[in-house]
Amino acid sequence: MYQVDVTVIPCRGPGDTSGLQAHIAAGRIVPSDIVAVMGKTEGNGCVNDFTREYATAALAALLGTHLQLPAAEVEKRVAFVMSGGTEGVLSPHVTVFSRRRAGEHAPQGSKRLTLGIAFTRDFRPEELGRRVQVEETAAAVRRAMDDAGIDDRRDVHFVQVKCPLLSSTHIGDARARGVDTVTMDTYESMGYSRGASALGVALALGEIQPAQVSDAAVLRDWSLTSSVASTSAGIELDHNVVIVLGMSARATGGLVIAHDVMRDAIDAAAVRRALQALGIEDEAQAARRVVNVFAKAEASPDGLVREQRHTMLNDSDINSTRHARAAVGAVVASVAGRSLVYVSGGAEHQGPPGGGPVAVIASA
Amino acid sequence: MYQVDVTVIPCRGPGDTSGLQAHIAAGRIVPSDIVAVMGKTEGNGCVNDFTREYATAALAALLGTHLQLPAAEVEKRVAFVMSGGTEGVLSPHVTVFSRRRAGEHAPQGSKRLTLGIAFTRDFRPEELGRRVQVEETAAAVRRAMDDAGIDDRRDVHFVQVKCPLLSSTHIGDARARGVDTVTMDTYESMGYSRGASALGVALALGEIQPAQVSDAAVLRDWSLTSSVASTSAGIELDHNVVIVLGMSARATGGLVIAHDVMRDAIDAAAVRRALQALGIEDEAQAARRVVNVFAKAEASPDGLVREQRHTMLNDSDINSTRHARAAVGAVVASVAGRSLVYVSGGAEHQGPPGGGPVAVIASA
Amino acid sequence: MYQVDVTVIPCRGPGDTSGLQAHIAAGRIVPSDIVAVMGKTEGNGCVNDFTREYATAALAALLGTHLQLPAAEVEKRVAFVMSGGTEGVLSPHVTVFSRRRAGEHAPQGSKRLTLGIAFTRDFRPEELGRRVQVEETAAAVRRAMDDAGIDDRRDVHFVQVKCPLLSSTHIGDARARGVDTVTMDTYESMGYSRGASALGVALALGEIQPAQVSDAAVLRDWSLTSSVASTSAGIELDHNVVIVLGMSARATGGLVIAHDVMRDAIDAAAVRRALQALGIEDEAQAARRVVNVFAKAEASPDGLVREQRHTMLNDSDINSTRHARAAVGAVVASVAGRSLVYVSGGAEHQGPPGGGPVAVIASA
Amino acid sequence: MYQVDVTVIPCRGPGDTSGLQAHIAAGRIVPSDIVAVMGKTEGNGCVNDFTREYATAALAALLGTHLQLPAAEVEKRVAFVMSGGTEGVLSPHVTVFSRRRAGEHAPQGSKRLTLGIAFTRDFRPEELGRRVQVEETAAAVRRAMDDAGIDDRRDVHFVQVKCPLLSSTHIGDARARGVDTVTMDTYESMGYSRGASALGVALALGEIQPAQVSDAAVLRDWSLTSSVASTSAGIELDHNVVIVLGMSARATGGLVIAHDVMRDAIDAAAVRRALQALGIEDEAQAARRVVNVFAKAEASPDGLVREQRHTMLNDSDINSTRHARAAVGAVVASVAGRSLVYVSGGAEHQGPPGGGPVAVIASA
Repeated sequence: MYQVDVTVIPCRGPGDTSGLQAHIAAGRIVPSDIVAVMGKTEGNGCVNDFTREYATAALAALLGTHLQLPAAEVEKRVAFVMSGGTEGVLSPHVTVFSRRRAGEHAPQGSKRLTLGIAFTRDFRPEELGRRVQVEETAAAVRRAMDDAGIDDRRDVHFVQVKCPLLSSTHIGDARARGVDTVTMDTYESMGYSRGASALGVALALGEIQPAQVSDAAVLRDWSLTSSVASTSAGIELDHNVVIVLGMSARATGGLVIAHDVMRDAIDAAAVRRALQALGIEDEAQAARRVVNVFAKAEASPDGLVREQRHTMLNDSDINSTRHARAAVGAVVASVAGRSLVYVSGGAEHQGPPGGGPVAVIASA
Repeated sequence: MYQVDVTVIPCRGPGDTSGLQAHIAAGRIVPSDIVAVMGKTEGNGCVNDFTREYATAALAALLGTHLQLPAAEVEKRVAFVMSGGTEGVLSPHVTVFSRRRAGEHAPQGSKRLTLGIAFTRDFRPEELGRRVQVEETAAAVRRAMDDAGIDDRRDVHFVQVKCPLLSSTHIGDARARGVDTVTMDTYESMGYSRGASALGVALALGEIQPAQVSDAAVLRDWSLTSSVASTSAGIELDHNVVIVLGMSARATGGLVIAHDVMRDAIDAAAVRRALQALGIEDEAQAARRVVNVFAKAEASPDGLVREQRHTMLNDSDINSTRHARAAVGAVVASVAGRSLVYVSGGAEHQGPPGGGPVAVIASA
Repeated sequence: MYQVDVTVIPCRGPGDTSGLQAHIAAGRIVPSDIVAVMGKTEGNGCVNDFTREYATAALAALLGTHLQLPAAEVEKRVAFVMSGGTEGVLSPHVTVFSRRRAGEHAPQGSKRLTLGIAFTRDFRPEELGRRVQVEETAAAVRRAMDDAGIDDRRDVHFVQVKCPLLSSTHIGDARARGVDTVTMDTYESMGYSRGASALGVALALGEIQPAQVSDAAVLRDWSLTSSVASTSAGIELDHNVVIVLGMSARATGGLVIAHDVMRDAIDAAAVRRALQALGIEDEAQAARRVVNVFAKAEASPDGLVREQRHTMLNDSDINSTRHARAAVGAVVASVAGRSLVYVSGGAEHQGPPGGGPVAVIASA
Repeated sequence: MYQVDVTVIPCRGPGDTSGLQAHIAAGRIVPSDIVAVMGKTEGNGCVNDFTREYATAALAALLGTHLQLPAAEVEKRVAFVMSGGTEGVLSPHVTVFSRRRAGEHAPQGSKRLTLGIAFTRDFRPEELGRRVQVEETAAAVRRAMDDAGIDDRRDVHFVQVKCPLLSSTHIGDARARGVDTVTMDTYESMGYSRGASALGVALALGEIQPAQVSDAAVLRDWSLTSSVASTSAGIELDHNVVIVLGMSARATGGLVIAHDVMRDAIDAAAVRRALQALGIEDEAQAARRVVNVFAKAEASPDGLVREQRHTMLNDSDINSTRHARAAVGAVVASVAGRSLVYVSGGAEHQGPPGGGPVAVIASA
């Protein structure tokens, strides 16, 4: 049996760990129980966003002090997923997931929130955005489900993946070895890596079939999607980190999770349905019960929202992921009644084109 | 008696007038009836946004052909207000307001949408953002109310003002004459000009008193606000253009207008109330009846949304007005069920800090 | 015999044609003599830079008035090439090229500046960045050489090409017809179109051989380059516009041209050599004789300048073309002693990777 | 007697300390000798540039390990100045200054490079950009001169100051206490802080007189300048850090320093003069002897470069400091023949408007 706790902590900057320190000092969070940390940091969320690795470094250093481990060892033990970009109303914060053994009494009748984590091996530059990344991710998702104590795929409500991108150094390395990368554009590589990772989630959960997976499917066959994948690319790692969130009768604790799928960037109704699935019907209940909301955002690739033209994909001053996070973040915040929500950009193969999964963790 | 019509036309680019041309060719819009055009263009909405003047130039050239007038004369007769910035889901479009005499039969019992326009004189650089601009704007609002046939201030539901900004040329000119401008920062001057213009609307409508108006109040005394002002700054003009939208028993036509005030950037409830004031209760009714929604957006100046920190004011890559338009635009669109809405940035003295007015035009 | 004149006119904004108007009013420029206009406009130089089409529209409208032609006809007669982006010290301006018949007396011994223009047909989206665009451009370059009266390829010193890009509308159109475009990223498409156009110049001038041209060579085989090509992509056209500048014994007039190749972004020596080729040895001579300098800029694709890492290709806030124009523009300006120079971004296949051609027009 | 050494180390990212580690491991740098580190990091150099504090944190952590000190103590002992922004060709790197006692033999006849450091107390938000900051900085400069062993002001060739900025939190704090800050715009506050700090340098060195110092002079009286000040604002500190670089007969070691003043952003001649002052006449000598070049960059506040309009101050997509660093960085690099140079933005009161100091450290 697992006891799972989730704590949302606002940050004053990417290097600010004072909130977590206070929780640890007060005994509300036990460092050795921490399994995963998902954060929103205030960088651009694109290639040269160093706030992600800075936040990870600061958190790993803090936990290292408590766990008597070098930071590098902490990062092998805890799944850190920092998603850059707090455009619009989004408020920088970290969500800390703790888990501890809670005795071996029999599973309860009712299910509760659980989580599990897993890591892939490091990828070579030429593997990113291709079949290899899809399959390695799928294997990691299965391991994370085991770790979470989830047997039934239908109990998986959110799978967060952090994945690498191609920097110009990576691209140069590959070229020097005479192999091709999926793209030569660093920003574009983020989409390929996110897309392949999302297909990995879909493959693990049976949303797509092995025969549908190929290099050519990534960012091409938009009919292939996962309704629970949330993938984020960053320059600070070379492998995929997988966090599976779901419900299990083997989990105890006071939290539950549900999800839905936004069909486009302004689909407030889907956010409301996700809340309603947990019995949250109005703003007062949301204020009392919601722990956090997790959603994916992207500019609709056909250039349209509700049949009218948007300009996100033609904007050379602001990348489309930044536009999309600002828009979807505000819609989610307007329904949840709070700006402390996790909305991450780039929803390739995550929900329908222009839309994306949305999950809610709340007190039971 | 006035017959007022409103046509919303999507644009493929800032220079695209093909939609208006088609309406004119089909006889649905009569060029000589056009009183005002309010547009959203896809520039950055800040200092170097030339899409506003390009769109105005293209529209004025087109109407000039039909009216046998040089473009400069068209701009004296028609109030063009182009608001730059279609961040997030916002879709570029123009709203064309037509008005014609409709006989002298007695006023109806029920009120209908009406509009009126007025212009101030050209401002000198040192007058922008100061008391002079407030008072000249107030006088213009009163003239526009007369033009609209509105006697009762409570019948005014939206006042759009287009106002100048200080370019570095303006600032240099003033300095050469030994006079100070309100700021030496071109981007910051947009806020001063919008703020002073909004106070002008508030003054004209009795929302603030003459004794409260001073140079020092602009962008300082945030208790002074208008609940119907919407002001936009642009590099393409040196005077203020005022459009008053409201209800009048002397107006005929099938349209009505109502407004409310968003208390912050995610106040979806205020948008719903504005719709409900016109009897629009759900998305299906909105889809059938809404002509356009007009709203103001700004980054809350205290750095908080619902008590949590936002990062819009510290972002040196994307100006805060762009963030705010993306966020509020998406919230409005998610309630109205359409991305073809008019959301304009910079809500200084327009509604409460961080919030802003929202108005809806719908079929009766 | 041709008499060729070149006039450089500063602009106060993309829609400002007052300078050209003054030259026409004073009789210094005869509208019917104008063959080409090359301008630097102050947009972002990327996908959503509407300053290019705005400037072209304003200039074509002005000339249309003088030539009694609709703007669309003017654009078929005059080659307008607006290059967006005046980062750093670059100063917005237009260079107006005039040409008139100058009697049939025998060619002089000494050669003088001449120019010729040509246009390709409109391209389909799937043709951009591929072999078709290379070959059509090469044919147009040959026609422009004929037009210029240049027989010897060695007399060609600068070939400016304006070429299309893929907007999301184009990409959608192609996809709807079931054909692939060279990329699905609008910003990236600019590089492909520039690269293919540059290869077209190289092909026409014998710098590369027909057998070397293939779809796969574009943006891949960096050994294929032109030492005189300068290509610029823009959203405002669907075909290529070609301007050939060179020397001819059949040209009269007081101007000469020379070129050199910058090996990287800080190769000031190459700029000095181009000046020295015309006998300009110091700043005083440059101030007296230089009419304009034309150069290409790009971020070195290997991520290095003089063996040290640059960050232009990893910057998701500012596109690399903007960085490169700012850097190369300043270097050229520092040698020429003036900020009124034409430096255009994106030098794919134009000079060596990271470098580019530079040409100088000066009085003889 | 002081032995002073300077090591320039390229960085692969803001958190990369591997270069310094290698130097320490090889015994080429002794941690306890390190007095100051000046770095160029690859953020935007503006308000939300967290690469500066990230780099400082990483370096302080590394040195803390070697010195057995907590990072906070390291920062009190070593002057870290990280300047954000490597636009254009600028290459991220750190310059490490080491100093050690070198016996008490008599001063040499020839002078050599020396340096000294000092810190001011923390400033309150309302003190930034005002007289208090000027005077506290001047006192710190005098202490740093003492620390460097410089008696004669003419031996000071470069004074680097790192100073705070106003974040929206600072501004809110001040407002809550009922006091005004010099500006309410966070980006603009950087200029005020840099300007007041530069006036402090000028005051300490006798370039301006005490009577000329007032709140009103900052960013207003452009006749007040320092020819050796280089000031940088950052969000990561609340006090000023001062590093004085100069020549002293009490310094030993193989390095020398000289400086000059660029009169505008393209004044390559000033860079050449600074090199020539050390006997460096051509690129080959520069390649052999130059250790680093330090320069300041700014967009000319009158909107002109060599009498032609620039667009840096009207650009709402890219802040003017970024444009200026890209331009000046390229000019300096083109003269020095290397992209590994330290060019920092915002030259208010540092050299003439639009220009700035430039200093060269080279082997003797």
